[in-house]
Amino acid sequence: MSNHFRNRAFRLRLPARPCTLLAGPSALAILAVSITLAFAQSPVRDYRRTHEQQILSEFTQLLAIPNVASDRQNIRRNAEFILGMMQRRGLNPRLLETATKESPPAVYGEWKVPGATHSIVLYAHYDGQPTDPKQWTGTLPWQPVWRSAALESGGRIVSLANDGQPIDSEWRLYGRSSSDDKAGVTAILTAFDALRAQGITPELNIKFIFEGEEEAGSPHLGEIISLNQDLLAADAWIICDGPVHQSGRKQVVFGVRGDVNVDVTVYGAKRPLHSGHYGNWAPNPAMLLARLLASMKGDGGRVLIAGWYDGVQPLGEAEQRAIAEAPAYDDELRSQLGFARAEGAGKSLLELINQPSLNINGMSSGDVGALARNVIPTTATAVLDLRLVKGNDHRRQVQRLVDHIRKQGFFVIDRDPNEDERKQYPLIAKVTTRSGGYNAERTRMDLPISVALTTAVQSTSAQPIVRLPTAGGSLPLSIITDHLRTVTMTVPIANYDNNQHAENENIRLQNLWDGIETMAAVMTMKPKF
Amino acid sequence: MSNHFRNRAFRLRLPARPCTLLAGPSALAILAVSITLAFAQSPVRDYRRTHEQQILSEFTQLLAIPNVASDRQNIRRNAEFILGMMQRRGLNPRLLETATKESPPAVYGEWKVPGATHSIVLYAHYDGQPTDPKQWTGTLPWQPVWRSAALESGGRIVSLANDGQPIDSEWRLYGRSSSDDKAGVTAILTAFDALRAQGITPELNIKFIFEGEEEAGSPHLGEIISLNQDLLAADAWIICDGPVHQSGRKQVVFGVRGDVNVDVTVYGAKRPLHSGHYGNWAPNPAMLLARLLASMKGDGGRVLIAGWYDGVQPLGEAEQRAIAEAPAYDDELRSQLGFARAEGAGKSLLELINQPSLNINGMSSGDVGALARNVIPTTATAVLDLRLVKGNDHRRQVQRLVDHIRKQGFFVIDRDPNEDERKQYPLIAKVTTRSGGYNAERTRMDLPISVALTTAVQSTSAQPIVRLPTAGGSLPLSIITDHLRTVTMTVPIANYDNNQHAENENIRLQNLWDGIETMAAVMTMKPKF
Repeated sequence: MSNHFRNRAFRLRLPARPCTLLAGPSALAILAVSITLAFAQSPVRDYRRTHEQQILSEFTQLLAIPNVASDRQNIRRNAEFILGMMQRRGLNPRLLETATKESPPAVYGEWKVPGATHSIVLYAHYDGQPTDPKQWTGTLPWQPVWRSAALESGGRIVSLANDGQPIDSEWRLYGRSSSDDKAGVTAILTAFDALRAQGITPELNIKFIFEGEEEAGSPHLGEIISLNQDLLAADAWIICDGPVHQSGRKQVVFGVRGDVNVDVTVYGAKRPLHSGHYGNWAPNPAMLLARLLASMKGDGGRVLIAGWYDGVQPLGEAEQRAIAEAPAYDDELRSQLGFARAEGAGKSLLELINQPSLNINGMSSGDVGALARNVIPTTATAVLDLRLVKGNDHRRQVQRLVDHIRKQGFFVIDRDPNEDERKQYPLIAKVTTRSGGYNAERTRMDLPISVALTTAVQSTSAQPIVRLPTAGGSLPLSIITDHLRTVTMTVPIANYDNNQHAENENIRLQNLWDGIETMAAVMTMKPKF
Repeated sequence: MSNHFRNRAFRLRLPARPCTLLAGPSALAILAVSITLAFAQSPVRDYRRTHEQQILSEFTQLLAIPNVASDRQNIRRNAEFILGMMQRRGLNPRLLETATKESPPAVYGEWKVPGATHSIVLYAHYDGQPTDPKQWTGTLPWQPVWRSAALESGGRIVSLANDGQPIDSEWRLYGRSSSDDKAGVTAILTAFDALRAQGITPELNIKFIFEGEEEAGSPHLGEIISLNQDLLAADAWIICDGPVHQSGRKQVVFGVRGDVNVDVTVYGAKRPLHSGHYGNWAPNPAMLLARLLASMKGDGGRVLIAGWYDGVQPLGEAEQRAIAEAPAYDDELRSQLGFARAEGAGKSLLELINQPSLNINGMSSGDVGALARNVIPTTATAVLDLRLVKGNDHRRQVQRLVDHIRKQGFFVIDRDPNEDERKQYPLIAKVTTRSGGYNAERTRMDLPISVALTTAVQSTSAQPIVRLPTAGGSLPLSIITDHLRTVTMTVPIANYDNNQHAENENIRLQNLWDGIETMAAVMTMKPKF
């Protein structure tokens, strides 16, 4: 129940100055008790309970449309479907196209509130990460299927009965973007349904924007904002994406890491060679790549590339306190994930995600498994993922990587080598940056709108919510703040174990239900401007 | 033309004591001149010239049958087809099955010579390496296609005209096993056709055996030999497999490296993790594998695993001389293959293949290319190829590798880790040996039968042939000598740039034509017992 539902039976006494919410755990504890009492029911929940079948029917239809941003035909089918969802709701929707109209459009809609002078934008994205259907267990990415629990816990495929009985909220819906981020689209539009059905009107104008190429690095979001400056102006952009805290507590996240992906390919002979006839004479690119990658990180996971940690902006006092107050969950998480030792020489996950990272997303040379054969491969490739924090610039970080590769003796180019280069340079690396790199973004936690958002989300939860200076993940938030005078904050709703970006992505049903309530609270928040 | 075709018009004066052939380059030079004069025509070549269409028709039919040893249905179709080829030739063929009859049979046949008291076995294999059809350029592995030249030289797809005109012998036939090793099967059986058609009878009984799982490491060849000791007894097994020297000169090879493949998998979290939310905290198995592999080899390609080079039997004087006499071809080869620096700190290819090796055949973690996504993969796997020389034992060499992996801090098991192990050990490696590892084999170059074979092969070539103590590649020759009192020698026929074991495998037509003459000479060799 939101603190804004004053016209309803369930009231919540809030501290007069929401800023005290940030003062320390004791204030949070008092609040939590009040909420626990008030929280048991809400009009939004009532609405959801009587419309579950309808909500899930629309959600699974949306999930059934393949949604890789580069799949031009299908990605547009998603946009059209969401346009229809918003048309049925009277949200005056339209597609925001790029100049060439060749990229996935953003879908825009609005809930104009008579007399409102301030606005917020609610953002989610409808595209999903590419995926190999063969890697999914028993189901396919775009054929959404219910399981009785997580696959890892033995969840079996179950059918949704249409008998009016409540659905077990521990069930999970498996499918690409079930969490990331069509759950966001569904939670936002269902929250709107609930508020309107219950006659609750926000104090702010609510604008909706659903992007179609976030997982491709949002290469056209800046252009779309530029072309629609007035339409997209707002006091804040609230991003509904990502998972809640591993403990299950709700989160408000005030920043994201920046991100840039780099492909590195090294070369052996021009044609695959018999590993017997030429092995220990012809250079083996898999070994060259292994040695190159190994040079980049030390034993404890510290990146050894010169300057990697230079220029990082330290956290402020409020941010440090928020991290200290977050639940200590690393040991539990490590145990669940099944590994004995984390990187970072004993630092916590929350401390570490406030540092830049270097990760290998994929690595390939020749074949393994049944297709492996006795060859020396011609090339070896790694895809690197560079996460950035405030103070890093994505171009500069890539340059540090390139400088490091040069220091290892490689001739660095951005295409395959030609004959002359092959003859001249013993070590050659092709290094290319994937489109869509962007910097980190962080909003101060003590701004009035930050406090209002925190209060709104807290009002829907019996437990103290977690406030994070930054998420480990990335969203193109700097693209937004580069083009608009606004701030960004993220309110995630998915279960943390949703297999986001990987095979077997899923959402736990209770997380979707909770997310609808969270989004309704966000829409009805009352910032003091 | 073989020196044994004395009943024909083309005679060749040979040195009285063939052993002098091995005395030094001057004897070889004299021989080369005599051969050049005599060599222009031969009855075998005459036969081939008038039967080219027929030979190639049978060859392409054989190549059209998929031949991965694990493909049980198709591999048996190959065996049946070859059985038919030998039945039509009256070679009294039969399938040599394993006890369970579940593995690919060897196909056996024989040319019994009245009065002959000695025998040789001619060996080739009809199975091929697994391959990914998607990696082939423009054609498919089991749809043999002619090209006007090598793909790398711009060879285009051409059709074989059936107009009686001679076929351009620079054309290449593309298809799996076109070189390795159905060319061997075809050259051997066509050589038989030519000799019989021209009325030439060998002095030895000739036995033919075509194996069906050589590329899988010959796991049942020992059993098949054991079950057929008398049938397969011979003074020598002559193996027709592999490429001639890179210079194009014919080769006789007196040994092969042993071989064993090892799969190494290292582990991260149990499920794929978002590389932003967990990157630089959760361990990245791709990086762990890169660091492990990098620890195995030094800058110059020397294997750093303790004891790797221990126990290697040094080469004898004849072997060292043969290597010294082989054409210096490394620079030319390096230039063709397109790399600037070989491993081995300046040692020649021929020196290096007389050392044990460690190669990466394949390496994989997560995905690269279009399927790459921002995850931390759950595992990373490499397939290693360990080549062995005389004095190495394949089990001992694998043990050295395992010891090395342990020394890097890994807990080594031969299956996926269980929950307890994941919690206990920060570094876990699954290390498994692929079936079919075997040791190196080497026959002395100065045995009478070795000299007879050298002489026979030399008789078909205007240029001095290359004699090698060992090939870089591997064949299960130790399996043969473990089960039979015999020696093994290899007479390869394929072009060196045949893409053996890789996509776009091909044979240059002239190599097949030369191979038929070589095999006819081998069958009619005259050892002094």
